[in-house]
Amino acid sequence: MTTLSEVARLAGVTSATVSNVLRQRGKVGEQTRQRVLDAVAQLGYRPHLTARALAEGRAPTLALVVSSIANPFYPEFALAAERAARDHGRFLIVCNTNDDPDIGRAYLDQIAGTLSDGVLIMNANLPMDELRKTEQRGAPVVLCMWEKPDAPPELPCIAVDFFEAGAIAARHLLGLGHQCFAALVGSKKSGIHAERYRGFASACKEAGHPHPTQRTRYINDTVESGYRATMELLREHPQVTAIFASNDLPALGAMNAIADMGMNVPRDVSVTGITDIQWARVSRPALTTVAVPTEAAARMSIELLLALIERRSPSPVMHVTAAPQLVERASTAVPRKR
Amino acid sequence: MTTLSEVARLAGVTSATVSNVLRQRGKVGEQTRQRVLDAVAQLGYRPHLTARALAEGRAPTLALVVSSIANPFYPEFALAAERAARDHGRFLIVCNTNDDPDIGRAYLDQIAGTLSDGVLIMNANLPMDELRKTEQRGAPVVLCMWEKPDAPPELPCIAVDFFEAGAIAARHLLGLGHQCFAALVGSKKSGIHAERYRGFASACKEAGHPHPTQRTRYINDTVESGYRATMELLREHPQVTAIFASNDLPALGAMNAIADMGMNVPRDVSVTGITDIQWARVSRPALTTVAVPTEAAARMSIELLLALIERRSPSPVMHVTAAPQLVERASTAVPRKR
Repeated sequence: MTTLSEVARLAGVTSATVSNVLRQRGKVGEQTRQRVLDAVAQLGYRPHLTARALAEGRAPTLALVVSSIANPFYPEFALAAERAARDHGRFLIVCNTNDDPDIGRAYLDQIAGTLSDGVLIMNANLPMDELRKTEQRGAPVVLCMWEKPDAPPELPCIAVDFFEAGAIAARHLLGLGHQCFAALVGSKKSGIHAERYRGFASACKEAGHPHPTQRTRYINDTVESGYRATMELLREHPQVTAIFASNDLPALGAMNAIADMGMNVPRDVSVTGITDIQWARVSRPALTTVAVPTEAAARMSIELLLALIERRSPSPVMHVTAAPQLVERASTAVPRKR
Repeated sequence: MTTLSEVARLAGVTSATVSNVLRQRGKVGEQTRQRVLDAVAQLGYRPHLTARALAEGRAPTLALVVSSIANPFYPEFALAAERAARDHGRFLIVCNTNDDPDIGRAYLDQIAGTLSDGVLIMNANLPMDELRKTEQRGAPVVLCMWEKPDAPPELPCIAVDFFEAGAIAARHLLGLGHQCFAALVGSKKSGIHAERYRGFASACKEAGHPHPTQRTRYINDTVESGYRATMELLREHPQVTAIFASNDLPALGAMNAIADMGMNVPRDVSVTGITDIQWARVSRPALTTVAVPTEAAARMSIELLLALIERRSPSPVMHVTAAPQLVERASTAVPRKR
């Protein structure tokens, strides 16, 4: 690759002069300026953006660390975040940890503050103290979808009221007349879907139909796990008329399991999800789900990260998105007659 | 962020000594070494990887430029490429162009050779001469899924025999007894799905059932476009018994359209896709498709890129993956009786 000094040599000037011309700084005579630009063109020199960013104490990209790029929600979020970053003249690079904290740590070590001067964290399963270390080293960190607006973390975050999302799903099913549910929770008991389940259970209890824990399964957040758990649950508890899933992927798996067991969604069993990914609209029947404001959360995450980088925001700080909203489609109906 | 010179100051040594200690080069006494390491720990200094990489003429990441991260095939490819990169001690950053050549060009300008020292291009809709310029500037470029093994491009590539993929789909439908097809092509007539369609049309002709072009639609590579085009095609050509789609997304849209028109897949109309994305398995009925070797193509792309970076490969060069393979699921059957 051509270097600044090669350009300087060809133009017969110092490297500092080349730099001044390219950055439109300092006083450089028109003839010299032209000689430098000719040399740049002749050698195909490109100013070394990273080097320049380093010299200016500023890196040109933002990083988004996601736990699983194969989970279709994350590319949807990444797309929205990338658009927001570009609106602010920044590039977004996406780093995938495959749910492995060691890989996440390696990304933070290698990228934060060097390749990128700020990091968005999307459920990357990284210990909070690792993330705080990254912040202390000078690379701001934003948690993109914090699940507990009533319990802010020690890091800046965009929060979504997932407790309410769970409650909305429950109230929808209760309103249709359902009383006997099964629940699929796409994380560990204390994991990232715990709030959604708490919201669901709380709304059931409030309505006088407390949800018995033996009809709850803690599973992976995948179509396949939702499929398997639904098969088991419906065999053990044939009286169930509706399935609450903490996320769209297990909900889609539940619908397939019900169909493969020879039953009909929603006539025999209703199913609800949370998030509203593309496949919720595309599936047949289309999935009734509680939409979270993905695009707004992505935009707010980018804007908070930039405010932190430019020291326009205190840290920690929490911004909460608009409330989740029910999207009623074809996977829910009144319960079957006994 | 702490700098090398701050560490040097605290340790009472020169910057060069700090650098030597951190890189385990040069001769440094044990006492001095310990003093430097203490200062590093005390100040939380991290060696500046990008700066070091630049100094060594080596950047730490590879970039994958994709046209649309929201198309579920690309995250699946990205996941496989990222795993392969990490097996070689590299990080993969994903850059999304949103099908906009200007954004792609901006990524190439900003990232190639600075943030990344090599670029994988996945259908990013970038003019070949732009890509060659990137290569000439010293950042090798690999086209990840070249569609025409019999016509190598001027850049290094991994090729997949997509003509054969189209022919496999056609032969499967012909073998079931279908003779009257509609075709959904997820690109422009001369676009990236042209070879798949050529393979399909060629196999039809060979079997004595040439495909009339009025039953072909050139559409966007999305579920929605496949849906709309199928509605139109089946209204105009009710005699059609099978739909060939050049990709899984339009095929999934076709299945929804057929169901929403009150017909049954595969009893009334059979549907085939190409690629075998996750949703081909998850959809109901599950989609019969021609699987392309995504994971192998991703791994081969990373390995070729590294060989080019390390000057172990000539350029241009083309490697061809194993052949695509039919995956027979529930969306195809013998044609309905007239």
